[in-house]
Amino acid sequence: MSLLDAMFLLAPVGSILALVFAAFQAKGVLKFPEGSDVMKSISQKIRIGANAYLKRQYKTVGLFFVGMFVVLGVMAFFNMLTPFVPFAFITGGFFSGLSGFVGMKIATAANARTANASSESLNKGLRVAFSSGTVMGFTVVGLGLLDLSIWFFLLRYAFAPYFVDVHNVDELVSFISQAMLTFGMGASSMALFARVGGGIFTKAADVGADLVGKVEAGIPEDDPRNPAVIADNVGDNVGDVAGMGADLYESYVGSIVATIALAVSAFKDPGDPTSLGAIRGASVPMIMAAVGTLASIVGTFFVRTGEKASQRALLSALRKGTYISSGIIVVAAFPIIWFALGPENIGVYGAVLSGLIAGVLVGFFTEYYTSDTYKPTRRLADSSLTGPATLIISGLSLGMVSTFLPVVIVGISVLVSYYASGGAASFAQGLYGVGISAVGMLSTLGITLATDAYGPVADNAGGIAEMSGLPESVRERTDALDSLGNTTAATGKGFAIGSAALTALALIVAYTDEIAVKAPDFIFHLDLTYPPTLIGLFIGAMLPFLFSSMTMQAVGRAAQGIVVEVRRQFKEIKGLLEGKPGVEADYAKCVDICTGSAQREMVGPALTGIAAPIVVGLILGVNGVVGMLAGATATGFVLAVMMSNAGGAWDNAKKFIEAGKHGGKGSDAHKAAVVGDTVGDPFKDTSGPSINILIKLLSMVSIVFAGLTLTFNLVDTLFK
Amino acid sequence: MSLLDAMFLLAPVGSILALVFAAFQAKGVLKFPEGSDVMKSISQKIRIGANAYLKRQYKTVGLFFVGMFVVLGVMAFFNMLTPFVPFAFITGGFFSGLSGFVGMKIATAANARTANASSESLNKGLRVAFSSGTVMGFTVVGLGLLDLSIWFFLLRYAFAPYFVDVHNVDELVSFISQAMLTFGMGASSMALFARVGGGIFTKAADVGADLVGKVEAGIPEDDPRNPAVIADNVGDNVGDVAGMGADLYESYVGSIVATIALAVSAFKDPGDPTSLGAIRGASVPMIMAAVGTLASIVGTFFVRTGEKASQRALLSALRKGTYISSGIIVVAAFPIIWFALGPENIGVYGAVLSGLIAGVLVGFFTEYYTSDTYKPTRRLADSSLTGPATLIISGLSLGMVSTFLPVVIVGISVLVSYYASGGAASFAQGLYGVGISAVGMLSTLGITLATDAYGPVADNAGGIAEMSGLPESVRERTDALDSLGNTTAATGKGFAIGSAALTALALIVAYTDEIAVKAPDFIFHLDLTYPPTLIGLFIGAMLPFLFSSMTMQAVGRAAQGIVVEVRRQFKEIKGLLEGKPGVEADYAKCVDICTGSAQREMVGPALTGIAAPIVVGLILGVNGVVGMLAGATATGFVLAVMMSNAGGAWDNAKKFIEAGKHGGKGSDAHKAAVVGDTVGDPFKDTSGPSINILIKLLSMVSIVFAGLTLTFNLVDTLFK
Repeated sequence: MSLLDAMFLLAPVGSILALVFAAFQAKGVLKFPEGSDVMKSISQKIRIGANAYLKRQYKTVGLFFVGMFVVLGVMAFFNMLTPFVPFAFITGGFFSGLSGFVGMKIATAANARTANASSESLNKGLRVAFSSGTVMGFTVVGLGLLDLSIWFFLLRYAFAPYFVDVHNVDELVSFISQAMLTFGMGASSMALFARVGGGIFTKAADVGADLVGKVEAGIPEDDPRNPAVIADNVGDNVGDVAGMGADLYESYVGSIVATIALAVSAFKDPGDPTSLGAIRGASVPMIMAAVGTLASIVGTFFVRTGEKASQRALLSALRKGTYISSGIIVVAAFPIIWFALGPENIGVYGAVLSGLIAGVLVGFFTEYYTSDTYKPTRRLADSSLTGPATLIISGLSLGMVSTFLPVVIVGISVLVSYYASGGAASFAQGLYGVGISAVGMLSTLGITLATDAYGPVADNAGGIAEMSGLPESVRERTDALDSLGNTTAATGKGFAIGSAALTALALIVAYTDEIAVKAPDFIFHLDLTYPPTLIGLFIGAMLPFLFSSMTMQAVGRAAQGIVVEVRRQFKEIKGLLEGKPGVEADYAKCVDICTGSAQREMVGPALTGIAAPIVVGLILGVNGVVGMLAGATATGFVLAVMMSNAGGAWDNAKKFIEAGKHGGKGSDAHKAAVVGDTVGDPFKDTSGPSINILIKLLSMVSIVFAGLTLTFNLVDTLFK
Repeated sequence: MSLLDAMFLLAPVGSILALVFAAFQAKGVLKFPEGSDVMKSISQKIRIGANAYLKRQYKTVGLFFVGMFVVLGVMAFFNMLTPFVPFAFITGGFFSGLSGFVGMKIATAANARTANASSESLNKGLRVAFSSGTVMGFTVVGLGLLDLSIWFFLLRYAFAPYFVDVHNVDELVSFISQAMLTFGMGASSMALFARVGGGIFTKAADVGADLVGKVEAGIPEDDPRNPAVIADNVGDNVGDVAGMGADLYESYVGSIVATIALAVSAFKDPGDPTSLGAIRGASVPMIMAAVGTLASIVGTFFVRTGEKASQRALLSALRKGTYISSGIIVVAAFPIIWFALGPENIGVYGAVLSGLIAGVLVGFFTEYYTSDTYKPTRRLADSSLTGPATLIISGLSLGMVSTFLPVVIVGISVLVSYYASGGAASFAQGLYGVGISAVGMLSTLGITLATDAYGPVADNAGGIAEMSGLPESVRERTDALDSLGNTTAATGKGFAIGSAALTALALIVAYTDEIAVKAPDFIFHLDLTYPPTLIGLFIGAMLPFLFSSMTMQAVGRAAQGIVVEVRRQFKEIKGLLEGKPGVEADYAKCVDICTGSAQREMVGPALTGIAAPIVVGLILGVNGVVGMLAGATATGFVLAVMMSNAGGAWDNAKKFIEAGKHGGKGSDAHKAAVVGDTVGDPFKDTSGPSINILIKLLSMVSIVFAGLTLTFNLVDTLFK
């Protein structure tokens, strides 16, 4: 066994370690008691609701996957694709969904336990919540790496001999990467459904509950009299947990497969197809991910605080873990690249560093713009003094200005990775470097996701504390955890968005590579002055807006259904609003309504993402598709940052006022802030994060349907 | 004199006819009486305020122009530019400003006259208001065409012999077009200052007046007790009239000079530089504009209605004028292109048609999304029933979805113009066709601008009717005129945005042409997969967001100043709020505050537009600049449509509710709608329309500073 093969084995080893670690952590969480019978029963209701939703979602999505399986199967039958593609697609979808499902399972098991632990101490609450986040984080990276390894080894050793000359390494890696890209496309499709569906569910419940409960009836958030309160808590789990799990599984896998796809053109030796360059190039992202997983496990052990830690101490404890993991990567990446790619390509190490640093910086500036410890959010809170209109204007403009630094940072990161990896001499190697920088950014996903995923658990714990009548002090602790979670979630979103931009760029190049392989004679016109390319660019720039409009309207319509139902229950169930003992709201009905409308509403946006590249390809051809991908990536990145940051800042401005500023709860400023928060909800939890997935899905669909676009398109047919 | 020369003479002839027609119309307006002394005095106050503002604006902008004149002069001294460039820049700015100034003069003279005429009949009110709009419309096109003609003839016959071989037509036209592009850049710079400054003034006054007057003190709009009421009316004139005048002057001139700049590469005969191809190509946009002006004059004579016309009849009267003008163009363009370019290039006629049709369609869909006679705005009004948050979400998503059709229409229009003009065989001719389609779209600007510019006059007339205590019925009539004005303004904005996209595309190509002329050996990497180009694309996509954030924040800050001042006056001026006779607010103070803050606040956004291409050029080089231009054009187009339409729809949803729907004025739905309207104000009148100018200014600055970018840039220096 060569050193290279040995290094490849790190991937399955790392993945199994991650999964074992996740199981170990899960056991730890389950050891904690769930608290009183009331708490158990509430937690049980949330669990039932979340299960019911996911079951129905998987049924709907299943139909889509079966349909796509047939389409891809037909294409494979006509030799437009290799026969593994349909299977790779299905497994990508399955495991992306599974990541979300496991996350939801542990989160719904941990919510009451966190509430109960918080009644003892803040630190204990953090420990339970963070452990459940750890389960989620390591399940995602463990499953991702495991699936990639299985596919890789299967394709390389079991299937490749029947399809390609395995001694022709370039052909071998091309063969592997095509199937793996389809695997990524499956994961992206599932992630888009999960993010959009879950996002609609959670925000419909949240907005609907607030509109009638807080605004009309004047009862507090999470009050058990509100019939939508369980749906709201279910939403945290199916949107912020299951949706995010599928999303980040997709980001993780996507960054790796995109880089593998670039390895051939970057490192092939035109004179000697048996040279190992391509496979060496393909090994780096997988090894980096494996080492990142180990580094993340090490990092988690440093997340500890004293029993009486302050909020600031908690945050620095979380940060310590992340920084230590990143530090390990910084050290380990050097020998990895040295041995895998050879000393002549050590410049790729610069790409790793620039990715890591860009991730941290984008995360930091996300925090800067959305946390109430900094000026922007505080000023936003000030603008609530002149009413909701100025608050909305300020929030939108905060979101817009917050796009400047991420664009500059990602731009510098692309430039550094490209030239450090030798882009000046070899275009393909430079772009491979861009892919590697996305892998570097996501290599510590295990721990960054852990710090991110614990937020919704804390949120749920707060809801349970409120509904089960635990003392005010417990609610204060869960609120502290929740607010910390908002900050870490912002950082997590920064990573997701930054890596999405880099991965999408790598995928655009993977698309042109794919075209070049399929049609070596094809002459590209990717010039920005060529009209079909330009029109594609315009369409691409418009897509994220169209998509966001669809998802926001979906939330609006779904919330409307909840408003009507909650009003009905208040009217028809006697004694409910007065809080008469023994009178209980019909929670299940609201969960049902959310489930139904999320199902209906998620189909349109998701299909738009899948249909757009096919339609644009059929009309404008390959150049138009590339234009569309570039336009969607650039505008989507900017719009996603804007929406996420505006939403996060509105949320925290409201929390800042609730903490007593500008008159606190019930003041006019607070009422204005609630309007901002409500507008921000679909921004930050439905539309914004879905755009990340959209831009990658567009690229992957383009790649898979490249053959079709080449076979026919209107512009080339009419004007050639 | 050849036929070609004779056709060229149409331009000065058309321009002088337009100016004479405008003068004639102005005389007609001034014949009407201004009404009572109160009305005269109010109108006088508005005039003084608007004059004071424009004087100060011209002073500030003058400094900028002097600075730029020096910079360009130095560059010309070092032979980086021809010596006319600084002068062309100054004159462009001067005439753009003059267009706005004349518009403001006539609008402030017509407001009281319209109010007075409306007290007789709706139709008479329309006639006065529309005539004043006509003055503005024909001043803009008359001045534009006159200036272009003067520069053209001066450059061709007076200056060219000293600089180029006049028998080398290609060189001659290149020489002419470079100076004329700088003329366009001057116009764009002025327009950006005017739009941003005026937009900040008008919305600061509007928002500020509403926040304290309507919301806090509970007095109606345009109530004379409100100290900001005069500033609000001044704002209509300096923003919606002077700003729009400068803006459309710039659009008109920009589309023509961009097309002239493309004429050389499109029609030069490589074998014979003395062939007249280039000059023929340059003649078409000028002749088209001249004929369009004549067609517009004819069209205005069809804008007549019976004395008791309904709202619908008024609208169709306005439409009739526009359609007749367009019809004349459709007929006249065929022989123009036949004779100017020869029968072999008659396909360019297809570009004219596609531009005209696209303009009408974009205008129609703008109306569809923003007028309360259609579903989208009515549904938006419905969403006010569940409060401001849902209204904001729905409005944003309406704006976002409304970008789909304009992008598709402009895309088709580009495709048709490109291929109809022979793009499949000659890239340069195809792109010339794209430029021509923008000229076609704007050829009837005289009349479309007339129907657009009358809106603010009607708005002012309403204010004067309210303040001078005219009967309710008069206010109802001016409201009807105003509401009609909102619809035609939406159509006008559609034209401005659509033509901006087409012109910007033409300018991007003009930039690459300029580079090719300056550095024939330069190798372009405009591929969407080349990192510096891609990073430029990202930066370009971010710029409209950054710019909008700056302008929106500026409105917020300026409005804050008005809020403080109005509150102070209500507190300190005894009897003011109670309406004690003889007690008058200090209106001038509010005008002063708006003037001061608009001055301060317009500098940042305007300089951003001018600095961005220079900075990006210095770092990323030519390819990065092209990427930036393409990104800014695509995203800017989409964002501008979104902001304008969302703002327009919010405004009309509010008006729809005020007309009695959902409980009418004072209901909760109305309060929510006021929030939407306030958010929409900077969207539709400050940020949205400024983006159109921004994207063209970016291109023109890039062209003028092309030499600098070629001399030095970081990427090429480090990695070549």
